[in-house]
Amino acid sequence: MLKFEIEKKLENCEARTGLLSVNGRTVQTPCFFPVGTQGTVKGMTPDELSSQKVQGMLCNLYHLYLRPGIETVEAAGGLHKFINWDGFIITDSGGFQVYSLKSLRKIEPEGVHFASHLDGSSHLFTPERVIEMQTRLGSDVAMVLDECVEYPSTFAYAESSMRLTLDWAKRSAESPERVASAVFGIAQGATFPELRRECARELAAMDFDGHAIGGLAVGEDKRTMFEMLDESISELPIEKPRYMMGVGFPIDIARAVRRGVDIFDCVMPTRNARNGTLFVDDGKLIIKNAKYATDMRPIEETCDCYTCRNFSRAYLRHLLISGELLSPMLNTIHNIRYYMRLMSRVREAIRDGQYLELLAELEAKLLKEKDIV
Amino acid sequence: MLKFEIEKKLENCEARTGLLSVNGRTVQTPCFFPVGTQGTVKGMTPDELSSQKVQGMLCNLYHLYLRPGIETVEAAGGLHKFINWDGFIITDSGGFQVYSLKSLRKIEPEGVHFASHLDGSSHLFTPERVIEMQTRLGSDVAMVLDECVEYPSTFAYAESSMRLTLDWAKRSAESPERVASAVFGIAQGATFPELRRECARELAAMDFDGHAIGGLAVGEDKRTMFEMLDESISELPIEKPRYMMGVGFPIDIARAVRRGVDIFDCVMPTRNARNGTLFVDDGKLIIKNAKYATDMRPIEETCDCYTCRNFSRAYLRHLLISGELLSPMLNTIHNIRYYMRLMSRVREAIRDGQYLELLAELEAKLLKEKDIV
Repeated sequence: MLKFEIEKKLENCEARTGLLSVNGRTVQTPCFFPVGTQGTVKGMTPDELSSQKVQGMLCNLYHLYLRPGIETVEAAGGLHKFINWDGFIITDSGGFQVYSLKSLRKIEPEGVHFASHLDGSSHLFTPERVIEMQTRLGSDVAMVLDECVEYPSTFAYAESSMRLTLDWAKRSAESPERVASAVFGIAQGATFPELRRECARELAAMDFDGHAIGGLAVGEDKRTMFEMLDESISELPIEKPRYMMGVGFPIDIARAVRRGVDIFDCVMPTRNARNGTLFVDDGKLIIKNAKYATDMRPIEETCDCYTCRNFSRAYLRHLLISGELLSPMLNTIHNIRYYMRLMSRVREAIRDGQYLELLAELEAKLLKEKDIV
Repeated sequence: MLKFEIEKKLENCEARTGLLSVNGRTVQTPCFFPVGTQGTVKGMTPDELSSQKVQGMLCNLYHLYLRPGIETVEAAGGLHKFINWDGFIITDSGGFQVYSLKSLRKIEPEGVHFASHLDGSSHLFTPERVIEMQTRLGSDVAMVLDECVEYPSTFAYAESSMRLTLDWAKRSAESPERVASAVFGIAQGATFPELRRECARELAAMDFDGHAIGGLAVGEDKRTMFEMLDESISELPIEKPRYMMGVGFPIDIARAVRRGVDIFDCVMPTRNARNGTLFVDDGKLIIKNAKYATDMRPIEETCDCYTCRNFSRAYLRHLLISGELLSPMLNTIHNIRYYMRLMSRVREAIRDGQYLELLAELEAKLLKEKDIV
């Protein structure tokens, strides 16, 4: 069973620190999980993840179901053993892939019919089946099947989609497989405040182990994103963990923490690393830029990561331009460590009662005009 | 100054163990150096190289000269600092690239005119200049400029090319830059025994710190390769280190050690790793094969590498098929470790006076009919 213990809750905002435990694994919240869609965080070994103090990762049922297949992972003794990672694993249900596949899927009350992006073969995911399969994978937290609505959408579509998501959530919550693993519901509702509130309220009544807020950061402006987050959170129970899916920029994470979010995941640190965009204290560093060609400083003087302790910007630029494998490897280590250091500062500031001060400092450094909310 | 101390020389064959020292760095021979053309062994951090007991690597002047440029490496304090690797570094002179470029180069007595494969710009490498540039890089061993002749070639072309290579070698040996670093001459002579002997004999008279045997493993059959190796070695002084460039297969390395070769380099372990060909005790394992889809054993039960200690064939196959970065990373660790374990067994067998027994064992396991010499 999942246990969530709130250590410290601030008075002047909704930020809190906590300990999330399940299957003998405990993570400190607020936390950020890198994405390991196919059972690997791109460019890092599990040992390196641990060295950078990564507590957990997000894997994807959709991808692992298609390849290598649930049976193979089961035969290995579960996903943790298969990928040799004893940290926390959340698996996404495939809801977001349903959204991404577009022409390859058909959503019906029963579930989602879709064609594999690998070989075109036909498959059906039902709410019950995705919980069962995530349980077989041995996920620490399974996500319910949901529909992530495109932005923009009409009220009518968003409403009927939200009701379908709620129906699926109910079926998931009542599924006999439910007992075997921790399950989070996913609050949808597109960009409509009343739908956001209704969906979150109904989910809250279903007694999930935690709640995700989904369908955000899909193209809407930042003001809308945070308004919708606020609407969803306003109906979610304070004592259960909250997970904002697919977010995101460091400053957006920091602003969502203020609103009471506990868990984040995003491809941003790993994907940006691969194209040479490195996170630093005051924003981003594009390592490809010619000005770094003879710059012998580390990415960031104050960073304690393997990359910053051992390599110069000039070398990292050389690796990127030369198309060397070591380029995404070293860049990923730095970006992941940046996110881990950020979350560590966030937790510390909450414990010290100084979170709004930290947020103001981060906003001063990182907020670009277009992001201001 | 380079120092080469022969520890043990066998009576029943030419195999020997030794200690090669220069710039405060010492390697045990016979040794195999992975290739790090552009200043990185593809897919491995310097820390991982050290963990796998890699003693040195081969970098390439041609590539580093074009990108990032000698000045940049100098500004970093030399190649070891630039790439954060304190192991041994041999730099190749560009001779092999001259051979590879074909239409982009023109060989003249002065040196090689060539067009950059990156941007088509014109450049000239002279024997003196390549020694000077390798010294500026801070290589532990610099290689002379040579011409590696295509296979097959006419006697007339091979002879005139060999004389040019000897002329260049003489200019390199007499270069004022010579004093600053250890320099190896390169014995050429294509597939003509008398040219092989003459070239090696003339080189031996020039007092280089060591000798490479070049122009082999370029398409000739194995019997010819070893005959030419024997011809070259027959004229080289026993007390200086011998380096067989670009070789190769584990069994070929073992057979060349018997003939008295001390140093090897090849892209084989790293390149094969990237396409999923893994070296094992009795040959190769093609990890993509369907039979490994649910095989939960490591690549090799007896291997002590990070990959074998932590991951199954099924997972490694999944990573390769999924196009994940972790695939070349984990495969490379294994293949490099395989080569390091091989060289360690080779050295131990020589010290124990059991080298021919080891070679017979390796030949029984690894020799395919077409390879028999």
